[in-house]
Amino acid sequence: MQKVTFNQDLANIRMSPIVSISEEVRRRAPQFQHETGKQFVLFQRGEIDFATPQYIVEAAKRALDAGLTKYPKSGGEDPLKDAILMKLREFNKAGGLTRDNIVCTYGGQEALELSFKLFAGKRGAGFAPCWSCVLENFVPFANIDFVEVPLGKDFSIDFGKLEEIIKQVSFFYLNTPQNPTGKLFTEDEVRRIAGLCDRYGVYLISDEAYERITYDGQTHFSPLSLPMENMIACYTFSKTYSMTGWRLGYLVTRNTAIAKLVTLGDYTQTAGVVTFLQHAGKEAIENRTEESKFLKEMIAEFQIRRDVLYSGLKGIPGIEVEKPAGAFYLFPNFTKLIPSNLAGHERHRNIWNRLMAKGVATVYGSCFGQHFGDNVRFSFSTTPVEKIKEGVDRMKEVLV
Amino acid sequence: MQKVTFNQDLANIRMSPIVSISEEVRRRAPQFQHETGKQFVLFQRGEIDFATPQYIVEAAKRALDAGLTKYPKSGGEDPLKDAILMKLREFNKAGGLTRDNIVCTYGGQEALELSFKLFAGKRGAGFAPCWSCVLENFVPFANIDFVEVPLGKDFSIDFGKLEEIIKQVSFFYLNTPQNPTGKLFTEDEVRRIAGLCDRYGVYLISDEAYERITYDGQTHFSPLSLPMENMIACYTFSKTYSMTGWRLGYLVTRNTAIAKLVTLGDYTQTAGVVTFLQHAGKEAIENRTEESKFLKEMIAEFQIRRDVLYSGLKGIPGIEVEKPAGAFYLFPNFTKLIPSNLAGHERHRNIWNRLMAKGVATVYGSCFGQHFGDNVRFSFSTTPVEKIKEGVDRMKEVLV
Repeated sequence: MQKVTFNQDLANIRMSPIVSISEEVRRRAPQFQHETGKQFVLFQRGEIDFATPQYIVEAAKRALDAGLTKYPKSGGEDPLKDAILMKLREFNKAGGLTRDNIVCTYGGQEALELSFKLFAGKRGAGFAPCWSCVLENFVPFANIDFVEVPLGKDFSIDFGKLEEIIKQVSFFYLNTPQNPTGKLFTEDEVRRIAGLCDRYGVYLISDEAYERITYDGQTHFSPLSLPMENMIACYTFSKTYSMTGWRLGYLVTRNTAIAKLVTLGDYTQTAGVVTFLQHAGKEAIENRTEESKFLKEMIAEFQIRRDVLYSGLKGIPGIEVEKPAGAFYLFPNFTKLIPSNLAGHERHRNIWNRLMAKGVATVYGSCFGQHFGDNVRFSFSTTPVEKIKEGVDRMKEVLV
Repeated sequence: MQKVTFNQDLANIRMSPIVSISEEVRRRAPQFQHETGKQFVLFQRGEIDFATPQYIVEAAKRALDAGLTKYPKSGGEDPLKDAILMKLREFNKAGGLTRDNIVCTYGGQEALELSFKLFAGKRGAGFAPCWSCVLENFVPFANIDFVEVPLGKDFSIDFGKLEEIIKQVSFFYLNTPQNPTGKLFTEDEVRRIAGLCDRYGVYLISDEAYERITYDGQTHFSPLSLPMENMIACYTFSKTYSMTGWRLGYLVTRNTAIAKLVTLGDYTQTAGVVTFLQHAGKEAIENRTEESKFLKEMIAEFQIRRDVLYSGLKGIPGIEVEKPAGAFYLFPNFTKLIPSNLAGHERHRNIWNRLMAKGVATVYGSCFGQHFGDNVRFSFSTTPVEKIKEGVDRMKEVLV
């Protein structure tokens, strides 16, 4: 009798450390509450505590009532693609695109997963720190040899180092605004990164999940606005409209050969995106009044949270923190607060452990690659201001 | 500048010939109608012309109103898994299973796609004729060396031949009731196939998409009722509840290591199945009164259509046709009606072309593998009785 070994690429996928952390919090919370009478302050999640706007919920219900429950069209329904084209023209300043440049996907997740799959077995690169799902899921599943290009301590780019790496890879992954730093790449930075990709025939995978979440009046410069054939841009409804559980996203590329391949991949994996939800997605984009009302409210709240958390962290001696211009994360450095004799795993978990003991849940920096083990990610997407203040107070108790 | 070649497995996927046929029908229909004043009779589609039952639509709307729009749990929500466990015990006679044996997926499609992915680069086998999506999508995407084991002309099994092949492969794909033949494998056949897999340590991928659609009081014998570790069973809500556009399905295996790998694969591809739709799926299964009412009505109608189509085809001299006991397809043989001097492509399209010219759309047998090029698939899932009769009359005109 034979012994079958399963697909090593599948076996190499790791369950998200953020999920494990949330499970750990659930395990520890009752004991913590029993001992202190207090609840955990949750800074570890990428979920959003706003409900999906009612106008989108109603659109989904209307599509259901209209019986739009038959097989979806491969690659996406035309009404949704047309709404996306309008949004790309107006928000991303990306013109010259048609339905053939778009593939509807299950969230930004499937868009990215299929983008990485295009380069299966090849070498790619991206900045460190890097969204954990890229490192734990897309890279092993597509068997990519992934090179991390470290940002500076202040998240600046060393373009010399970047060029050296870009010469050696098939694609570069860029996430702006970025998880976990909240860095909003400037137009100049984006143009220079794209220019290097162009020069060396490297594909740019542009992950713009947080494109609508920016602060202080700053705006996202969309890589897709550049007229590059070698670009695959990935978008999601999850963050813009608080639709994480709807699993709606799309991929855009000026290279229609890529769009065709991704359409085949999406069809093979799932037979396409839930039909009536595509019609809800169309309404999400096209109802500009409701969209604008929702985004204003959500971003105003996020900006307050960011300010409170930023000032709080800034006020703790030893923490070095950048003020994020986008997304809903801060990624401070704790080098000065970690005992200098610690190394490896022990070092990487030091701050996280000390904060957990005080009922403050975060994500340790080693989840985001090899270069930022002294940092810790704080998300404020589900943490109201009062809770943020409480978290900061507890941090002071343990760190100062 | 480098030249990147994209993932060959993706490039090898072929768009479903059934989709191309439907597009061809759309192109030709206006001209046909102009010339004859008649419409096409559509026998080519796997869609269902019943609406999704209202009780499931209402459950989806309730879940939306309840705000169940946050990220889904990896592998599936517990309430849906519990409903599935109940259904597996009662309908499939498969006990001894827990939530850890189940992974929720985007239709049977994602369940099968991930099952094939487990065996990437390996050799597998299945009966011919075989569902086109296996041959065109799952096999190339997972880079499988797939061996077709031909059924007899009457769709009987040559167990000697089967054993010879099973010895040489890592998995065997079994679809019962079967697309495109409508064959309902008997308990004895299923036990003998599973027994061979067991003997040679071969995994059985059991595709039970049509499990609830059986005729004349005959019932599906579920491979999953056998206590085999080496089995991966794939199910869908699409056919049972006319939910093709909802993309809801699940995978079941007694081997929890496989369930874990598939959960990782599903998470990587899509981050999980749309949260509120899982709650609608739970209601679909648990509301036994509504379920039974819907299934009775749909199957009664399908049985009438099957009888009319079967008698019609049987009444045309030269057509050899088996009466299907399940699914909604007939797969008659036309050898006696194809000019004997024809070969290859010309031969395979002969009947299909002649029927198309008369406004009758079917799927040529070569879509279902290498061994049944003289057959043609008729689906009656969207074809009312009057249309079936009209189709048969036109066939008589062109063939007799």
